[in-house]
Amino acid sequence: MTPALGPIHHVAYVVADIDAALARLDATLGLRPAIREVMDDQGVEAALCGPPGGAVELIRPLDPEGAIAGFLESRGEGLHHVAFEVADLEAALADLRAGGAELIDERPRAGLGGHLVAFVHPRSALGVLTELVQAGPGPGH
Amino acid sequence: MTPALGPIHHVAYVVADIDAALARLDATLGLRPAIREVMDDQGVEAALCGPPGGAVELIRPLDPEGAIAGFLESRGEGLHHVAFEVADLEAALADLRAGGAELIDERPRAGLGGHLVAFVHPRSALGVLTELVQAGPGPGH
Repeated sequence: MTPALGPIHHVAYVVADIDAALARLDATLGLRPAIREVMDDQGVEAALCGPPGGAVELIRPLDPEGAIAGFLESRGEGLHHVAFEVADLEAALADLRAGGAELIDERPRAGLGGHLVAFVHPRSALGVLTELVQAGPGPGH
Repeated sequence: MTPALGPIHHVAYVVADIDAALARLDATLGLRPAIREVMDDQGVEAALCGPPGGAVELIRPLDPEGAIAGFLESRGEGLHHVAFEVADLEAALADLRAGGAELIDERPRAGLGGHLVAFVHPRSALGVLTELVQAGPGPGH
């Protein structure tokens, strides 16, 4: 069984200056933040822009020792991960595990906007860090 | 005026071996190709996987002197661009131009599956190569 992926939920970009990036995203593409949160456990501040419009998440590092700070230092600003909607995250993770996929999160956890999320390792997703987001009612949906 | 972006149409990944990548994408994420085309004018072969499921485009270089071959050589496999749907591509390009955005394609051109597409320079889209795809009826929609 492979997981039943829904549509793309968002793409995430790492940025150094989230205020400047939000202003540029609004000015050029007309995308505005629907949610903006400091996520202390992740050491980041994140904003999800749209809907309406395709959803772009911006992430800036707060913790200089964290993964996002390391990404920014080694690769610069740019695409960080792609998130797909799934209707049932536990079932999707079980399907992935059964298929031998390498999971970063073995269990669903709370993500931006209170959604249940889990990350799949790039090694199991064509080299791209991939997030699954449980669709449906949630504080930020 | 900023362009009225619709949802994300697809994310595109550059790969070295498209058959192997399609097999991995099916086995791990359950995404299968809906369209697969050699695009001679671009010097690439491309496949669009899904719907159903989030749409992922795979691109492999055919022209060793082309931009995709250069990307693969310098950065390796991975995320290449993000595409958003727009209802009216001419209008979206006019809005972008009026806002000072740098366009790679000044006019809509035919993309994968016969859709009208145009690319926006990464300098005008937070460092990420961004494609606009005119939604609606088309050979591959």
